[in-house]
Amino acid sequence: MSVTAARGFTAAGIAAGIKQNGKPDLALVVNTGPRQDAAGVFTSNRVKAAPVRWSEQVVKGGVVSAVVLNSGGANACTGPRGFQDTHATAEKAAEVLGLSSDEIAVASTGLIGVTLPMDQLLPGVAEAAAQLSADGGERAAVAIKTTDSVHKTAVATRDGWTVGGMAKGAGMLAPGLATMLVVLTTDAALDSGVLDTALRDATRLTFDRVDSDGCMSTNDTVLLLASGASQVSPEYAEFADAVREVCADLARQLIADAEGASKEIRIEVTGAASEDDAVEVGRSIARNNLLKCALHGEDPNWGRVLSAIGTTRAAFHPDELNVAINDVWVCKNGAVGEDRSLVDMAGREVRITADLAAGPDSAVIWANDLTAEYVHENSAYAS
Amino acid sequence: MSVTAARGFTAAGIAAGIKQNGKPDLALVVNTGPRQDAAGVFTSNRVKAAPVRWSEQVVKGGVVSAVVLNSGGANACTGPRGFQDTHATAEKAAEVLGLSSDEIAVASTGLIGVTLPMDQLLPGVAEAAAQLSADGGERAAVAIKTTDSVHKTAVATRDGWTVGGMAKGAGMLAPGLATMLVVLTTDAALDSGVLDTALRDATRLTFDRVDSDGCMSTNDTVLLLASGASQVSPEYAEFADAVREVCADLARQLIADAEGASKEIRIEVTGAASEDDAVEVGRSIARNNLLKCALHGEDPNWGRVLSAIGTTRAAFHPDELNVAINDVWVCKNGAVGEDRSLVDMAGREVRITADLAAGPDSAVIWANDLTAEYVHENSAYAS
Repeated sequence: MSVTAARGFTAAGIAAGIKQNGKPDLALVVNTGPRQDAAGVFTSNRVKAAPVRWSEQVVKGGVVSAVVLNSGGANACTGPRGFQDTHATAEKAAEVLGLSSDEIAVASTGLIGVTLPMDQLLPGVAEAAAQLSADGGERAAVAIKTTDSVHKTAVATRDGWTVGGMAKGAGMLAPGLATMLVVLTTDAALDSGVLDTALRDATRLTFDRVDSDGCMSTNDTVLLLASGASQVSPEYAEFADAVREVCADLARQLIADAEGASKEIRIEVTGAASEDDAVEVGRSIARNNLLKCALHGEDPNWGRVLSAIGTTRAAFHPDELNVAINDVWVCKNGAVGEDRSLVDMAGREVRITADLAAGPDSAVIWANDLTAEYVHENSAYAS
Repeated sequence: MSVTAARGFTAAGIAAGIKQNGKPDLALVVNTGPRQDAAGVFTSNRVKAAPVRWSEQVVKGGVVSAVVLNSGGANACTGPRGFQDTHATAEKAAEVLGLSSDEIAVASTGLIGVTLPMDQLLPGVAEAAAQLSADGGERAAVAIKTTDSVHKTAVATRDGWTVGGMAKGAGMLAPGLATMLVVLTTDAALDSGVLDTALRDATRLTFDRVDSDGCMSTNDTVLLLASGASQVSPEYAEFADAVREVCADLARQLIADAEGASKEIRIEVTGAASEDDAVEVGRSIARNNLLKCALHGEDPNWGRVLSAIGTTRAAFHPDELNVAINDVWVCKNGAVGEDRSLVDMAGREVRITADLAAGPDSAVIWANDLTAEYVHENSAYAS
């Protein structure tokens, strides 16, 4: 049901000819109201794509009436021309929808350093507007795919209101969001300040803790649009829970579909002196290429977990560290623990627990293994 | 010529049976004097192998009369037993050489989390001592190999004195040294304080700037031993230059022999506001898996260079960044520059220049590409 699960939204997804292979590449999501409150979270990469810089400004106003998204080109590192192209895209959508361009967000994904084919894109915006419908959410989700093998949607329904969303992302998945475009919609009636708080609370614990390959994108964008069409204003905790549920669902789908991955790795850091320590250690484990290779080879190589922990500033004593892989405590007190041959590595999911024995805090980071297929996909992507 | 190029040193390398495949696995280097001044630099990983903790203490005294090195096991994450094994190794060497164990450094390399077969190792120390000779340097260099395809030695000869050395390391090559054991020897007559300064100056610019795969080892050890046998006490600058020359030569050999690599990547960051900025940016580029894959595929993907720069705290403006790949400025002012098809990627060496346009400082980091062979070697290593 995607972005049209909540009332007050229409969407479309079409093939505008941005991708040379003729696949869908342009999505449009419109908030038909009665309200157009919105919030957004963007990449923390300092090299930001033109649409990110545009949409950050749009979201600051707290009102977003439509979102234009394209795959087939990131419009990143494209100079002043790239920003003009984003502006022209918003202007075109404003024109065909009868809206103001400063309430139209734009998101792009694909190769960096390539300007968008505006001769295809702008007519595509008009065509998408003509195809807007209350069941267009799935087609929109399909149109934002790049190397994704499947499109990704999620919905959480509560008492009289709904949060739905779509996501794309398959590589360059890392901190400060994972390379992805996400649009969430809700028919709850809430102002942009509440939406912003709920969205940041949710992304901090979901998309921000996906670290597929350690690479941070120039284009990460997560938008939350609220139409108020349900005429229900839920309590904050209930609303935040629904947003987090949808974000967690989509984040899990990103990890499951990461480029070339054969394993989904759940890294839980426990016994940390602070949540920051837990996240730092989790990320360090998530990014250790040698460990990622070992897990691909179904080798429960806990030594590589310890060497990754050792590179962090977190509070711990090396001789108090404990590590479990798939619930077998293969490392106890910084040394050999239970027999590593007891670890069953056959499944697609691998669970690592790293106990720092230094405090009460914890965090979960999701990562992927490193495979020859990942190398292949990412050495051939641009060609 | 290795560690026996300088006068006042003997060495041996033998197969003690630590490696199950019967290959050489134990090296011994002895400083026959007249002086035994020494300095050492060790991994900055907080999870340190037992021999690192031992040798740090030995080096603090400023005197090292012998070094025992083994491949076939890192003796890391092996608990109190591991430290006892290192101690016993030094005691055995002291016994057979007629020296004091607190002047004997120990270094180990191989799998983490496996205790050493002391029944093989201790008799091996005696056997190696019996085979010590002034031309044993090459055999010692061979005995410390793990997945290295070749053994690595270097020599710098000056007016009446010499610096020589051997290194091993092929994976887990990263900051705060690259996974490696290095022993440098000289017949210059210098005290341990001077040796320490020269060694730190050299490693900071050589081994510390090798970042093959972003992974930091538990065992990195670089030792510099001085016999004084030349009876020459060179000026500091001249000596430091010779030490740096040998370290640079060995570091370059490490990158050339890195596990599974098909490219050696020289990353020069220029126009940085500080040397720290230049190093931070260089490391971020060196560790970007997507870029490493692209370079493996001979794709001059400068967008991935910019997205890596964007994750750092270095001073720069995104629209002033310039990037050259093999001397073609494919990115100018943060956007498309010269035609990327002009870049010849066929050679084994790839040169990336990242100009931050923010100041006068620079740094060079060496890295490798990411290949299916790297994945294969490191998913099969423990099995």
